[in-house]
Amino acid sequence: MNLRPAPRIDGLQYANWSEKIFRQLRSGGVDAVHVTITYHETFRETVLNIETWNRWFERFPDLIFQGRTAADVQLARATGRTAIFFGSQNPSCIEDDIGLVEVLHTLGLRFMQLTYNNQSLLATGCYEAEDSGLTRMGRAVVAEMNRVGMVVDMSHSAVRSTLEAIAHSTRPIAITHANPAAWHPALRNKSDKVLQALAESGGIFGFSLYPHHLKGGSACSVQDFCQMIARTADKFGIRALAIGSDLCQDQPDSVVEWMRSGRWTKAVDYGEGSASAPGFPAMPVWFQDNRHFGAIEAGLLEVGMSQAEVAAIMGGNWLDFFARSFSSVATRQERAAE
Amino acid sequence: MNLRPAPRIDGLQYANWSEKIFRQLRSGGVDAVHVTITYHETFRETVLNIETWNRWFERFPDLIFQGRTAADVQLARATGRTAIFFGSQNPSCIEDDIGLVEVLHTLGLRFMQLTYNNQSLLATGCYEAEDSGLTRMGRAVVAEMNRVGMVVDMSHSAVRSTLEAIAHSTRPIAITHANPAAWHPALRNKSDKVLQALAESGGIFGFSLYPHHLKGGSACSVQDFCQMIARTADKFGIRALAIGSDLCQDQPDSVVEWMRSGRWTKAVDYGEGSASAPGFPAMPVWFQDNRHFGAIEAGLLEVGMSQAEVAAIMGGNWLDFFARSFSSVATRQERAAE
Repeated sequence: MNLRPAPRIDGLQYANWSEKIFRQLRSGGVDAVHVTITYHETFRETVLNIETWNRWFERFPDLIFQGRTAADVQLARATGRTAIFFGSQNPSCIEDDIGLVEVLHTLGLRFMQLTYNNQSLLATGCYEAEDSGLTRMGRAVVAEMNRVGMVVDMSHSAVRSTLEAIAHSTRPIAITHANPAAWHPALRNKSDKVLQALAESGGIFGFSLYPHHLKGGSACSVQDFCQMIARTADKFGIRALAIGSDLCQDQPDSVVEWMRSGRWTKAVDYGEGSASAPGFPAMPVWFQDNRHFGAIEAGLLEVGMSQAEVAAIMGGNWLDFFARSFSSVATRQERAAE
Repeated sequence: MNLRPAPRIDGLQYANWSEKIFRQLRSGGVDAVHVTITYHETFRETVLNIETWNRWFERFPDLIFQGRTAADVQLARATGRTAIFFGSQNPSCIEDDIGLVEVLHTLGLRFMQLTYNNQSLLATGCYEAEDSGLTRMGRAVVAEMNRVGMVVDMSHSAVRSTLEAIAHSTRPIAITHANPAAWHPALRNKSDKVLQALAESGGIFGFSLYPHHLKGGSACSVQDFCQMIARTADKFGIRALAIGSDLCQDQPDSVVEWMRSGRWTKAVDYGEGSASAPGFPAMPVWFQDNRHFGAIEAGLLEVGMSQAEVAAIMGGNWLDFFARSFSSVATRQERAAE
């Protein structure tokens, strides 16, 4: 049972999962985490990844279980476990088939990015030269995601596509893992215009600990990171802000190669890396794994945020967002029949 | 709302579904039906069939919804709808991958035949010359079906395989659609030895209305059919007996070709038919569609069965079986964590 007064929720991780990391989640008091289960994988390959998770759920039931609703976060706290919520960082898993949105939601997928870095069937990624916004299928799929209760995640999308997703979606969207470009102007970080539109629409933003998103990279200090969060809260309010660590613990560099290059190129795409630094960057010394969320919490208090504000950022806002996002919207006919 | 005192449940249908048939289910007071959604289809093709059902659920929410638990039968009665429970008549949908058992259970699959008429990866079908019983994978998959709550259905299996499935399964199994061979010695009908083992193990047997399973075929009278049921109850007790109509309403003959020949032969297999009568046989005049369950109910009363016995056969026994069958068995570790 978790005796902490507020939930601790991480908005994105893609670790090389193991019993060690599941135990670190417990040591760190992490009640829930949104995990990436698929990037460029087809539907069938994504289902194989779900099967791998099913084996972990069967093997480590005292540490983890599959989260499906906001209530599962409370179940996690009551039983001293971590609720695992599935997400995809690219829409490859739905192939060209809108019917797979509901199928994957039934299998537990709660987040899907409309793009990784490239153009997808749905929208434009942040590495493309031209951003043509939501496609015809993109609009249809966003409406279907809204209907079934799957969160639109625009972390890796281009600006126009992101703004159009915010406008077109009838439910608030997420940018699960990024930082403000005003603090560190990386291609993956987000402009104040995007942050403003996201916050005004009831969406949510997860601050990333991935070094390429940090001012100073791996050398970024916890004070600098927390001051940036406090300033962002001053600009856009507390409610839209949360953590999405982007922790990729224990992954071999072959995984970041898959994330960046998938099967779309025969060359090597370095993404946020470079030919001289192609692999995963070293995490900051103060955030190495799931046991270190306390450093952020303490850092936020030190820069003058209140207990209530810190609790909201460390998990309360995600819990509220989960509650607004994961259930299906009954159609008029369905409501009429109940 | 269904005001009938007892539930009416059909243990197998494979209709060419349409709004007309969904309305006939309501007219006939059918609270729940196990529908075949796949035969020789791969996993991906089976998911396409689920997508088709999802469209029907979205389109006709005042008539049907997806059933997942026994409680959904009560929900169907309370809201005047029919709960649709998914099943497969062959294990093609799990391919060679035991992990797909849990995945398909999450998507709602509640019954799976270990074989259609042929040898499968799991067991032997009733048309093979040699019956080698449960395979290595068959034993593993039955254990997994037991764990997640998916019913083993041996309707199209050979005798030894059926007896081994009954013995190996830790939960009662089903023969969803067949008749006693003692009444009509068709290859698909079941011996008293199989019926005895099924009943003693807490399993369930659905009497079929498919003409090839009926004494006299399409000309079989409702009296003869109901007398056969009463005699079977005298031999094996009431609790194991139910209806599994095998109604294949409005299907073109191309569908029975797919059922029999799939992709396993380049020739045409006639199954229970023949070269001179290759298509679907005509249903008995007293059971043409879902509006005609009342004829069976009245027939059972006329041959001297009690109201309680008739209610058990028309749906009560299925409801009890559903309640014992569809929930997952928590592992020791899972129970320890709760």
